[in-house]
Amino acid sequence: MSVDWYTDFVKNNYRPKATDIVVEFHFQPAGVSTREAAGRIASESSAGTWTTLTNMPKRVKSTMATAFNIKKNYCKVAYPIGLWEKGNAPQLLSGIAGNIFGMKALKTLRLVDVHLPKVYLRSYKGPKYGVGVLKRMKVRGRPLTGAVSKPKIGWSAAEHAKIGFETWMGGFDLVKDDENLTSTSFNRFEDRVRFLTKMRDKAEKVTGDKKSALINITGPTHLMEKRARMLHNYGWEYAMIDVVTCGTAAVQTMRNVCGDYNLAIHAHRAMHASFDRGNHGMTMKFLAKLMRMIGVDQIHIGTVVGKLVGTKEEILQNKEALMEKTVHKQALPVSSGGIHPGLVPDVLKILGNDICLLVSGGIHGHPKGTRAGATASMQAIEAHNKRVSLEEYSKNHKELAQALKKWGHLKPK
Amino acid sequence: MSVDWYTDFVKNNYRPKATDIVVEFHFQPAGVSTREAAGRIASESSAGTWTTLTNMPKRVKSTMATAFNIKKNYCKVAYPIGLWEKGNAPQLLSGIAGNIFGMKALKTLRLVDVHLPKVYLRSYKGPKYGVGVLKRMKVRGRPLTGAVSKPKIGWSAAEHAKIGFETWMGGFDLVKDDENLTSTSFNRFEDRVRFLTKMRDKAEKVTGDKKSALINITGPTHLMEKRARMLHNYGWEYAMIDVVTCGTAAVQTMRNVCGDYNLAIHAHRAMHASFDRGNHGMTMKFLAKLMRMIGVDQIHIGTVVGKLVGTKEEILQNKEALMEKTVHKQALPVSSGGIHPGLVPDVLKILGNDICLLVSGGIHGHPKGTRAGATASMQAIEAHNKRVSLEEYSKNHKELAQALKKWGHLKPK
Repeated sequence: MSVDWYTDFVKNNYRPKATDIVVEFHFQPAGVSTREAAGRIASESSAGTWTTLTNMPKRVKSTMATAFNIKKNYCKVAYPIGLWEKGNAPQLLSGIAGNIFGMKALKTLRLVDVHLPKVYLRSYKGPKYGVGVLKRMKVRGRPLTGAVSKPKIGWSAAEHAKIGFETWMGGFDLVKDDENLTSTSFNRFEDRVRFLTKMRDKAEKVTGDKKSALINITGPTHLMEKRARMLHNYGWEYAMIDVVTCGTAAVQTMRNVCGDYNLAIHAHRAMHASFDRGNHGMTMKFLAKLMRMIGVDQIHIGTVVGKLVGTKEEILQNKEALMEKTVHKQALPVSSGGIHPGLVPDVLKILGNDICLLVSGGIHGHPKGTRAGATASMQAIEAHNKRVSLEEYSKNHKELAQALKKWGHLKPK
Repeated sequence: MSVDWYTDFVKNNYRPKATDIVVEFHFQPAGVSTREAAGRIASESSAGTWTTLTNMPKRVKSTMATAFNIKKNYCKVAYPIGLWEKGNAPQLLSGIAGNIFGMKALKTLRLVDVHLPKVYLRSYKGPKYGVGVLKRMKVRGRPLTGAVSKPKIGWSAAEHAKIGFETWMGGFDLVKDDENLTSTSFNRFEDRVRFLTKMRDKAEKVTGDKKSALINITGPTHLMEKRARMLHNYGWEYAMIDVVTCGTAAVQTMRNVCGDYNLAIHAHRAMHASFDRGNHGMTMKFLAKLMRMIGVDQIHIGTVVGKLVGTKEEILQNKEALMEKTVHKQALPVSSGGIHPGLVPDVLKILGNDICLLVSGGIHGHPKGTRAGATASMQAIEAHNKRVSLEEYSKNHKELAQALKKWGHLKPK
């Protein structure tokens, strides 16, 4: 009696069906052949186990995944649609991104990309607004602009809202919480919402422009529901969620809740880099696809030039995951992390104007303060869109000149 | 004007306060000094940003983390308690396990361990039952035993329940779903619950023993709430959740829901190995602590000898995270993955009898079928606890002899 049946899951010339979920993996075998390693990936992520079984269901063939296109350290695995529960994102991860990462027979395993068939995608809502947030915010021909109040934690709710007011008055559209600010003794969520609401109304009145905020509701699901309701009641357009630390089960439920409240979801990706760097884990591109499918409206994808990792190629792939034609609306890419006016043109050259651009330390560190910093960033955007160099533009725009004097074109790391 | 302030976050001889959250990190700097790298970790995970700021809140000092005990590639970081929202696990992760993994200034970063002060731990419920599930299941002096119906996906709900019956009749306590089985067209969750309930009642009547199941409710939070209610209505003791793919925001809410329904939570850890292998990401030990704090009752910690990664040292640390004295109940360690009767004594030698031991392929692959396989595993446990070798015991226990003939003491990989 043979002990294992891993290679039953390999058919190198398999042609996937239109309804298959197809996943591309990179892998390094540990003491087994490449073919067997690919079979083990397909086995453990579908109907397999480590040994032969005495009793088999008739339908087992229709639930076995198939490893194919095995080339060097890459393979594809096709999963029959019947394996999956529609509209259940955690289950998808438990299958294609579950136990397989922990197999002794693999040194490393990386989920590179996924192709999700329409019949499966349609069981998810996708973004309610997506890139439509630009129209909702009355922004055209330039990025939607926003800033975290920095330091990201430490301000009282009232101070936070005052900095928000300065940010809006400098020309920015959005005031943003950072990933680790939820509700603290000195800056309670409810207080922050009330103070920001008052300041937003004032800023809108003075400027005549639409102003909004990305207020962080991250917490246990029931608490997020309560916080989303409050944001709705105070007339906000957005809820911000740390989608990786919260997890897909909560994000899916919050997509429904926020949709009912007409709240777009701003997805912060804190913790993604615990599994998307190096040659193990999964790519940010996959995470971006997954979050768009679940239905976040905008999500961080990197900057190329800022303080966080991500090559130009990777970040363009993340963008593509949000923009490519599927059954869902396009989601808006968010670029942030170590940006200041001197880097704005670099980001826009790479990602274009249809993004959400966050400049935080790069406005609050401006020698003349937050409002001047926001103004300098808006000037940098104007300069880029008028095809004028920052140096040239700064001759008649003193806030930009001051920013360039402090940071120049420094690429922080 | 200086551009950054990372080293303001370093005080090598700092002595943490009793209320500090203290995290141990392993890191490899990329082009910056060890001291600066440690400062960047403390900065990005608390109140810092990449540049100096023009305006600072008075309370900034009380929100800055402090890097200390920097030795080779290790450091500790102490976080003031005021940074944290009580009872908000996603926020904790967004801070201590968030952006820091993606900093260009670090080649790798690993969250090794965390010390959580009592005042913080008390804001979480911890396990409702924990190791008390043993008493609830009337098990003493041996592991709680369970098996996934294998293949893990492919059986109809009725077939699944029949295999469950065989498992129970072989002497096992628990029938378990696997991580990727939630609700499919051929095995709907509701059908599975109904069929398993009928079979459980029959098995309890025939054997006179308590029998239960780990039925997988994984899905969007609202769906899990509905499924937990159904399990409660059908008199089950457990709900199973894929805690990593679902995420902490859902697990926290489900701790409340399941607690109200008197359901213990069986935590499957699928996807943990996307971030806990190698020298980046975070350790399983940390994940185990986190999940115990949130309040799962039992969680997978590895086998040492089975098909999944994890050294003996790591797995004993995982166990320690569940058993060490804190304000919460102890959680029960679950050992599974590639176990068969010939390996049972090895696992018990390492982990003891107070565990949940899952033997799945190792019973369903038994030449005489599931019931004989479960019997063989129970015999292996008896042999170990009577200090008799399996070979000796198998002379008078034919099911064990048959299992040993197929697998011997094979350590699958």
